[in-house]
Amino acid sequence: MSEKIALREVGMRDGLQSIATVMPTETKIAWLDAEYAAGVRYVEVSSFVPPKLLPQLADAEAVIAHAMTLKGLHVSALIPNSRGAERGIALGVPEMNYVLSVSNGHNLSNVRRPTAESIEDFRRVVQLCHSGDKPARINCGLATSFGCTIEGDVDEDRVRRIASEIAAAGADGIILADTVGYGQPAAIERVFRKVIADVAPLPVAAHFHDTRGLGLANVLAAYNAGCREFDASLGGLGGCPYAPGATGNIVMEDTAFLFEAMGCETGIDLDRLVEVRAVVARALPEVALHGAIAKAGLPRNFHPVAQAAE
Amino acid sequence: MSEKIALREVGMRDGLQSIATVMPTETKIAWLDAEYAAGVRYVEVSSFVPPKLLPQLADAEAVIAHAMTLKGLHVSALIPNSRGAERGIALGVPEMNYVLSVSNGHNLSNVRRPTAESIEDFRRVVQLCHSGDKPARINCGLATSFGCTIEGDVDEDRVRRIASEIAAAGADGIILADTVGYGQPAAIERVFRKVIADVAPLPVAAHFHDTRGLGLANVLAAYNAGCREFDASLGGLGGCPYAPGATGNIVMEDTAFLFEAMGCETGIDLDRLVEVRAVVARALPEVALHGAIAKAGLPRNFHPVAQAAE
Repeated sequence: MSEKIALREVGMRDGLQSIATVMPTETKIAWLDAEYAAGVRYVEVSSFVPPKLLPQLADAEAVIAHAMTLKGLHVSALIPNSRGAERGIALGVPEMNYVLSVSNGHNLSNVRRPTAESIEDFRRVVQLCHSGDKPARINCGLATSFGCTIEGDVDEDRVRRIASEIAAAGADGIILADTVGYGQPAAIERVFRKVIADVAPLPVAAHFHDTRGLGLANVLAAYNAGCREFDASLGGLGGCPYAPGATGNIVMEDTAFLFEAMGCETGIDLDRLVEVRAVVARALPEVALHGAIAKAGLPRNFHPVAQAAE
Repeated sequence: MSEKIALREVGMRDGLQSIATVMPTETKIAWLDAEYAAGVRYVEVSSFVPPKLLPQLADAEAVIAHAMTLKGLHVSALIPNSRGAERGIALGVPEMNYVLSVSNGHNLSNVRRPTAESIEDFRRVVQLCHSGDKPARINCGLATSFGCTIEGDVDEDRVRRIASEIAAAGADGIILADTVGYGQPAAIERVFRKVIADVAPLPVAAHFHDTRGLGLANVLAAYNAGCREFDASLGGLGGCPYAPGATGNIVMEDTAFLFEAMGCETGIDLDRLVEVRAVVARALPEVALHGAIAKAGLPRNFHPVAQAAE
């Protein structure tokens, strides 16, 4: 039996929110359908932020509603606060992702309050999501878990303590995030191993960016520590796509190749996934799509683990 | 005590041999001096192939002779056969690297004889290198150790068997090579672990290319298996630099960053190493230099392990 890996596409949220161009709703839906056809079964589809702040995601309801019609697709949405949770609950979204920063300085800069207050807010969000007729799963992403652009080092014991508080608050999952691309494999393996043990049996997912070339080495380190859920984006969309050479999220295609080549089961058909790039390239001709496997092609010693699920 | 890692620059050999432009001897020397000043202490400087076949490396003697004047620099040269070994011995080169392919089809295509005959040839080369007044160290690179562009899969037991034959032949070191960029971390960790145990205490080095994005994940896997010596090239020079997006060797700067970030000691000053790219960029304006750390810069949580050796 091969190990199962859940790869979650976050490009429609984390990718598109960093690109000025507003992708038409029908293109987002075409992209989503194409990834679904390639076997992708986990998608963070959009974000319930005020449309004034992120016009790129103003159609969150429409895209998510469509995603929820795709059988077996694990649909989730990012929520910045209780107001976002209410929008998600109203739509019946099955899973939501809240984000706070482990680093106090980063949290202050992002949402103008200390991390402790965001943890309080998360407690209220959990109550909201878990009450009502159709309770939704609620995960919490811990940004700057492996370093901070403002504070530099982030204390690993603080990451563990906050992860445990989030677990105690009733989270359905934790996402250790390195949005700033500061992580390195030794720290990632160490922290994942500890947090996974601390909060078991709660799932602990990884959200990595490839800013400094260590993206897939970091994925391997988290995998070695027991992580089986990873965020990624098609073509590495995200970050700052207009800065030459800057990359965003780890590349979905290369991450899927890494796991399939190692004999893990992602459910993804790599050839079909690579073809999805054309949908995004047509819609965003000014954005560079990253990724090695799309350029080099699959090697002759590659044996896909399983066909994409239908 | 931090772990010591030997990073060997192979761009002047593996990089330049794949670029049509002939880099002037004085530029190669300037590049070498600049890397030495940045703390690099292992360099495969050139190759003793017939100048007619590789005019890019026709100045092998001149560049290697200069390299041998740099105190504490571990100078090595590639040799394709006994004739190359003789040129190296005549110059007093302290260390030479022979290469054969584990895959029979690849060896036939490369040097028009089966792998078994190359192993015989290697035995003669060892005798040559180890006899005489000033014996030279002689390593053997095992190409296609993780897959072959002609045969596809390469049997792991065959890699182990050939590595043991090479050790028995008197090699001073073995280099498991994935020149074709077919390797994946699970296989790499498994094969390195076994070969290191098989040939101990012989050192087993890694030579990886980043063709399919797994380069640094593969480095991490070999490191986890006990490997402490890695080939890399500045800007990822090598492979097919004219094919857009195709990459050659793993990037020296990013590999050094990976290890220094993990707290391993490479002896390399990353800021100074990144500056060396300007030397190569000026000399080869048509060649794309790869690498993430040169573009993104060091993160604020980076603490270099040690200053570059003087």
